[in-house]
Amino acid sequence: MNTPELIRRKREGGDLSPAEIREFVDGYVAGEVPDYQVSAMLMAIFFRGMTPAEAGALAESMMRSGDCFDLSKIDGPKVDKHSTGGVGDKVSLILAPLVAAAGGIVPMVSGRGLGHTGGTLDKLDSIPGYRWNLDGAAFQRQLGKVGCAIIGQTPNFVPADRKLYALRDVTATVESIPLICGSILSKKAAAGTKFLVMDVKCGSGAFMDSVEKARELSRGLIDIGGALGMKVSSLLTQMSQPLGEAVGNAIEIRETIDLLKGGGPADAREITLQLCAGMLVLPGLAKNQQDAMEKLTRLLDSGKALEKFTEWIAAQGGDPRIVDDQSLLVVTNDIDELKADRSGYIQSIMTRDVGVAGNILGGGRMKTDDVVDTAVGFIVPAKPGDKVNAGDTLVKIHHRGGKNLDAAKRMLREAIVIGDAPVKALPLIIERMA
Amino acid sequence: MNTPELIRRKREGGDLSPAEIREFVDGYVAGEVPDYQVSAMLMAIFFRGMTPAEAGALAESMMRSGDCFDLSKIDGPKVDKHSTGGVGDKVSLILAPLVAAAGGIVPMVSGRGLGHTGGTLDKLDSIPGYRWNLDGAAFQRQLGKVGCAIIGQTPNFVPADRKLYALRDVTATVESIPLICGSILSKKAAAGTKFLVMDVKCGSGAFMDSVEKARELSRGLIDIGGALGMKVSSLLTQMSQPLGEAVGNAIEIRETIDLLKGGGPADAREITLQLCAGMLVLPGLAKNQQDAMEKLTRLLDSGKALEKFTEWIAAQGGDPRIVDDQSLLVVTNDIDELKADRSGYIQSIMTRDVGVAGNILGGGRMKTDDVVDTAVGFIVPAKPGDKVNAGDTLVKIHHRGGKNLDAAKRMLREAIVIGDAPVKALPLIIERMA
Repeated sequence: MNTPELIRRKREGGDLSPAEIREFVDGYVAGEVPDYQVSAMLMAIFFRGMTPAEAGALAESMMRSGDCFDLSKIDGPKVDKHSTGGVGDKVSLILAPLVAAAGGIVPMVSGRGLGHTGGTLDKLDSIPGYRWNLDGAAFQRQLGKVGCAIIGQTPNFVPADRKLYALRDVTATVESIPLICGSILSKKAAAGTKFLVMDVKCGSGAFMDSVEKARELSRGLIDIGGALGMKVSSLLTQMSQPLGEAVGNAIEIRETIDLLKGGGPADAREITLQLCAGMLVLPGLAKNQQDAMEKLTRLLDSGKALEKFTEWIAAQGGDPRIVDDQSLLVVTNDIDELKADRSGYIQSIMTRDVGVAGNILGGGRMKTDDVVDTAVGFIVPAKPGDKVNAGDTLVKIHHRGGKNLDAAKRMLREAIVIGDAPVKALPLIIERMA
Repeated sequence: MNTPELIRRKREGGDLSPAEIREFVDGYVAGEVPDYQVSAMLMAIFFRGMTPAEAGALAESMMRSGDCFDLSKIDGPKVDKHSTGGVGDKVSLILAPLVAAAGGIVPMVSGRGLGHTGGTLDKLDSIPGYRWNLDGAAFQRQLGKVGCAIIGQTPNFVPADRKLYALRDVTATVESIPLICGSILSKKAAAGTKFLVMDVKCGSGAFMDSVEKARELSRGLIDIGGALGMKVSSLLTQMSQPLGEAVGNAIEIRETIDLLKGGGPADAREITLQLCAGMLVLPGLAKNQQDAMEKLTRLLDSGKALEKFTEWIAAQGGDPRIVDDQSLLVVTNDIDELKADRSGYIQSIMTRDVGVAGNILGGGRMKTDDVVDTAVGFIVPAKPGDKVNAGDTLVKIHHRGGKNLDAAKRMLREAIVIGDAPVKALPLIIERMA
């Protein structure tokens, strides 16, 4: 392989063949292609992009760099969801058992919180006994038995992504659609997923700062997923307000159980159902979105989804009594309240700052080696458009003995803007793409 | 310094401050900024370019990475010429003593042949006794005494360029105007040059494949040189035919001496005089191009230039008798001739292939560690537009006992195209820029 020649071709806007991309990725993982050639290639890709065929070959080469889970012997469509990350996003925890109850196989490999956003594994850490570090064999066994599982990355899971991501992070080559898609899709494909619904968050608490960029990412994932043989659809969802009311870890598991019991905040229920419906429609488990919504509502209301949740949690060693005894999900009893200092309408919520306030309180990481306190968190019932009176509670804060409370509270106060003008509630689903 | 942030800013089309560029280059040379971040930055520069201020700061930072020769105590303007490389280009060897005879100080730091083009140091190697490996102190002394010197790079000469060039070569980031200019100008500035005339070659024997690109490079050098405090002008000169008739090493020194004696091929004389004239006009050693041409013609015709040549060669240990006894410049007596196989007009010469044929014969390098045979070479009197008869000599070939003669001859035959249509002689000076 003439690596400089490949870089030059991409630099000039030419295409690389699947074989060339495979050799490049394999060479990088094997330590034969040095970092400095890879970073030049990544920057050339940033500027020139990749065709869906190229990006598909990239994702596939990355996938093949490590463990791939073979779910072909398990009946049922292998269907997953991926979120670009938000605040209060507990969707996976409801969605995995709900879709499994509807006949899907949901092989979720999740991650830690990143920046201002929460992480599914951090939330699961608040469930006594829950083990997310299953090996591949146990993961596959559980999927066959229960229909869903949520684990962390196994040690040899898509090492190409780990190596590439670390390099992209220090060479300013993160924000490239084909590279982002390669990272997401290689991991989904390695986990055995054939159908993927994307939850692309838009708004003040999302990484994507515009609907335009969210569309571009969705289009990339749909096209590149297609080149990879994966069927992808995408929902652009509201992230200019926290998703649901609970923001934290144990506190979000509590809300998860409320939602599985048919209660919980309306916005979290609606977005979860819409994403699940997409997951049923994509592989043909439902005729259309409406049919899917009806099926899913029945599964929630009948208690089948909650039953599947209990089965899943127990299968991974978690204490199933959390469903009936929320005190097992430890949330601090040190409570403070942020009250509205004036009457009016909530104009906007700087949702990113709500997430950062949670980190400050100890519920997330400021540095990668911080230990997460799963017992702190917020209840934020306020949404843009709500009418509030001076003195109303905007946020209920569960803190740890006052630690960093003032800083978190100050940030929350700044984040929630109250004004005189009436404001319309924000749409939950911004756009659908397939 | 937050290196990823600097890369990101350049990637987004923003500017870097001189201080940031200095820190980046210093960090790279010190081994603190790793190759993989530098190559990502180089690729971002390839796509986004640099302002003259940025590129000037780059060239200056590179210059400061090693030895800088201080010529401030030497009277007279420090003026140099740089060629982008061609075939038969012996201009420097005439130009240095000629401009020195006219009052300029010419501090030339030259290189080896690259690809199909010859190198000044290789040519000088054919002069018995000539030492091009002077140290900085000897270089400065000689400039003060003689007014010109041609040496090779000292061990600590612009190490940033050496390191950056090696990285650019393997990351497909060579072809970037600000990076090319940084490489050229940092070395000229380190040598002490304040006035620079560029000889940007255009045509079938040049690295630049279009006049458009030659203009772009010239514009970059003029503007970036300006930002660096260096006055630069540029001549775009003909390289769709070998420069002069001799192509090789010793054989080109012989032609050099013919030219210094007022003879030699008209094209080599004209281009040399035009470049020298630019070197007199730029620092005000002549009122204008015509005044300069008159001065220079007098210096050639009066023997003053030849005298300066002899003084210079002797100062660097070379045998000055070469001027009168060309047999001291060893050219092989194994001679073959390429004859025209038909009558007609020379339509074109693939000049690059004439250079490659010289390499094949042993007069240049196919690999970097090849030893150059300074005694082989060609005399190519043919120019596009010339009328020839079948059987006329097109090339006189000085080979080494027939070694690779057939291959070289075949390549030459293909390179010189004869046809029926009359063809106009090519212009020697394509454009002037300042």
